[in-house]
Amino acid sequence: MSRKWDRFGDGRVPLWVADMDFSAPGAVVDAVRAVAESGVYGYGDPDEGLEEAVRKRWETKHGVERCERSWTRWLPGLNPGLNHAVRAAGRARGGRETTTAVCTPIYPPFLYASRNNQTPKVEVPLRATPREGEDAPKGSVRYEVDWEALEAALERDDVGLLLWCNPHNPVGRVWTKEEMTRVAKLCVEHDVILVSDEVWRELILDEERTPFTGAASLIGEIEGLRERVIVMTSPSKTFNVAGCDVAIACVPDKALRLHFARAGSDKAEITPFGLAACKAAYTDDSCEVWRQRLLAYLKSNRDRVIESLVSVDAVDSMGTFTVPDASYLLWLNCERLVDRVERSPFDHFLSHGVALSDGAPFSAPLSARVNYATRREILDQGLARLEKGLTATAPTTTE
Amino acid sequence: MSRKWDRFGDGRVPLWVADMDFSAPGAVVDAVRAVAESGVYGYGDPDEGLEEAVRKRWETKHGVERCERSWTRWLPGLNPGLNHAVRAAGRARGGRETTTAVCTPIYPPFLYASRNNQTPKVEVPLRATPREGEDAPKGSVRYEVDWEALEAALERDDVGLLLWCNPHNPVGRVWTKEEMTRVAKLCVEHDVILVSDEVWRELILDEERTPFTGAASLIGEIEGLRERVIVMTSPSKTFNVAGCDVAIACVPDKALRLHFARAGSDKAEITPFGLAACKAAYTDDSCEVWRQRLLAYLKSNRDRVIESLVSVDAVDSMGTFTVPDASYLLWLNCERLVDRVERSPFDHFLSHGVALSDGAPFSAPLSARVNYATRREILDQGLARLEKGLTATAPTTTE
Repeated sequence: MSRKWDRFGDGRVPLWVADMDFSAPGAVVDAVRAVAESGVYGYGDPDEGLEEAVRKRWETKHGVERCERSWTRWLPGLNPGLNHAVRAAGRARGGRETTTAVCTPIYPPFLYASRNNQTPKVEVPLRATPREGEDAPKGSVRYEVDWEALEAALERDDVGLLLWCNPHNPVGRVWTKEEMTRVAKLCVEHDVILVSDEVWRELILDEERTPFTGAASLIGEIEGLRERVIVMTSPSKTFNVAGCDVAIACVPDKALRLHFARAGSDKAEITPFGLAACKAAYTDDSCEVWRQRLLAYLKSNRDRVIESLVSVDAVDSMGTFTVPDASYLLWLNCERLVDRVERSPFDHFLSHGVALSDGAPFSAPLSARVNYATRREILDQGLARLEKGLTATAPTTTE
Repeated sequence: MSRKWDRFGDGRVPLWVADMDFSAPGAVVDAVRAVAESGVYGYGDPDEGLEEAVRKRWETKHGVERCERSWTRWLPGLNPGLNHAVRAAGRARGGRETTTAVCTPIYPPFLYASRNNQTPKVEVPLRATPREGEDAPKGSVRYEVDWEALEAALERDDVGLLLWCNPHNPVGRVWTKEEMTRVAKLCVEHDVILVSDEVWRELILDEERTPFTGAASLIGEIEGLRERVIVMTSPSKTFNVAGCDVAIACVPDKALRLHFARAGSDKAEITPFGLAACKAAYTDDSCEVWRQRLLAYLKSNRDRVIESLVSVDAVDSMGTFTVPDASYLLWLNCERLVDRVERSPFDHFLSHGVALSDGAPFSAPLSARVNYATRREILDQGLARLEKGLTATAPTTTE
C-alpha cells in the first residue's frame, strides 16, 4: 500500500512523492515497533520528555531563542498546518478576506491552502538564474526571490499571509540570512503573517556552504516579527516518518497561537506512532549519526543525478535544473523538452518508465521534480530511463 | 503517552476518553506490527483489496445497497470529517451561511465543527424519559428525539446540515427504523444534508433487541435522500485503533462527494498503520470472533455499572442514567448531585479518584460520561470511587 510504489505500477521507477525508500533510524523503528507491540492504539499525547525535546529542537535547529514549551502546537502534518494558518490569518485580521502570498513553484499544498479555504492567493514567481562559477554544472540554475514582485504583493491591503518554505521545496534553496531578514522585514512592514515551513531544515546537504537561518531566529532582531511568525517542522522528511502523522508548529505570540489553534481544531489526532517516532528521533543520539550518513548518501545521489543530466546535455534537450542545497528533490525546467515532445514532462518521462512529480500542481506545468532518496541502483535505473527520455526524441542538432 | 492514563495521573481511575484498555484483535496487531517492522513509514494508499473490503462493509454493516467503491472517501478521523461536512454543506448551498443542527447532548466535535468553521449551530435537546417495564433499572432513562423541536430547526432556511450520531454518543441509543426514517424524511423535506456518524454501529450490545438502520440504507425508500446523505464510520472504536488515524465516509452522490472532498483537502494523511489495521479488521475472520467476545465483555461491564448505580440509589443522590444500547459509554445526569455538592460532576468525581468525561463540552454541564471499556478489576475500582462520590456527601434523607 505504498503510494510511491503502487500509484504508477507496471515496473515504472518511482522518483516522485517526497518520502524515502530507506528504513527510518533503528531507534525510531524500535520506538514505533514498541507502540505496535503494545496492541493498544488509543489516543496519545506528548509526554514531558517529548515536549522538552521539541523545545530544545526549536532552539538548536531553528534558532528560536529562549523557546518556551507552550509555544509548540502539535499537528498531524504540515498540510493541515498550512490550512490552519490561512484560516488563522483571516481571524487575526478580524475576519476580513485575506489573500495568501506564495513564491512559486512551490509544494502544491501551499497553493491549495487558500483554495481549500475559499480565499484568494497571489503567486510571486521565483526567478531562475544561471549558476556561476567554474564548478557550476552546465545548465544548472539557482532560484532567487523577485524582491520587487514580492514587495508589490505584500504591500497590498488584502494580503495578510506569506506561506514561505525554507529550505524551499521544490527548488532546493536554503535562503541566506540576508534573504530571510529581508523577507521578515517586509512581512513586518506590511503587517503580514510569516509562516515558514522548515521541514527540510535537517536535510541541508552542505551546511557550511549554505547555513540556515530560521524565521523565528530573527525575532530578537526584527521588532514586530514575534507577533507575526509561525514556524512549522516535522521529523517526517528527515527521518522518513511522513506516514506517522506528526508535525509541530512554533508560535511565540500568544494571540496568534490562539487563532492558529482555534482555526485548527478540526485536526486529526497525532498518532502514538508519531509521538514515539518523534521522541526517538529527537532524543536518541544514534539518530544524529544516522542523519549524517543519510546526508552523505543523498549528496552523492544528488551529484549522480546532475552528472546524468550533464552527460546527456540536458540543457539542450530539456532545459535547466537546480543543484539543491537541501532535500532530496531536484527540479527540472523542461521548456525545450515540451517544445519538442508536445506533452507534459511528467507524461513524457512516465512513458519512458520513470515516474517524476508533475510540475503542474506546483504552478509550473513545464517542470518536473526528481526524488533521489532511493537506493543507488534504483536511482541509476531511473536515471537511465530519464536519459532515454531526453535523448530518444532529441533533435539531431541542437541550437 | 496514553492520553487516558496520563492526563489526570495520581492514581485516578480513568473512565473517560473513548478508547479501550484492551489490545486490538491479534490479526490487527499483526498487521500494525508488520508496518512497524518494515521500517519505511512513507505515504500510503488503500489497495484494491482494502477498497473492496470497505465497500462490502458499507453494504453488510451499514445497509448501503449496491455500494460502489468510488463512494468511499478516506479520512484521518471522524473529527476532520465532521468539519469537512460543515464546509461542504456551505458549498452545496452556494456559499450561503449555513447553520448546523445537532441533537444534544452530543460528542463535543459535533458542536465544535460549526464553531471551527465560524458558522452558526442550533442545538435540539434530546428528551430523557424514564425507562418503562419491570426490568428497567431504577433511575434509568431512555433518550428520545423531540420531533417538534427538530422539525422547527430543520425547516429554518439557514439550516442546511444535520450532524447525526447513530448509535448516539453519549446517550447510547440505537435509533429505530421508524426514527431514522422520520429523520431522513425531515432532512429531505427541508433540503438539509444528513451526516450520520455510525462509528459505534459495530458495538451494538444486543442487536436483536435494537436492530440497526443505517442512514444510507434508506436511499432506495426515500426519494431525495441519496443526494443529501453522508455516512461516516471507522474501525477506530470497535477495534480500538483510534490512534491509527483512519476513518471512512460513504457519499453516494457525486456532486456532494466533490464538495465534501474539496472542503476536506486540508486533511492529514491516512497512516499506513491505519490502512493495515482497517484491512485486517475488515477481512480477517478472527476479528469478528474477537468482536463478539468484546461485546459480551462490554455488556457485562455495562450491567456492572448499572448494578453499582442502583446499589447506591444513584437516582436519589445523583440523578438519572442511561442503559446504553451500544458503545462502552454510559451517561449520568447529575442534577441532584450538583445541587448538593455545588461543583461539576466531573470535578466531584475526580476529587473522589475517578476521571469521567465532563459533560460541559457535550452541552450538558450537569452530566458526566462513564467509559466502561476496561478490565473488570479496574472498572470495579473506578465504580467503588464513584459510589463513594455518591454516598460520601449524600444527604442522610432522600426526598
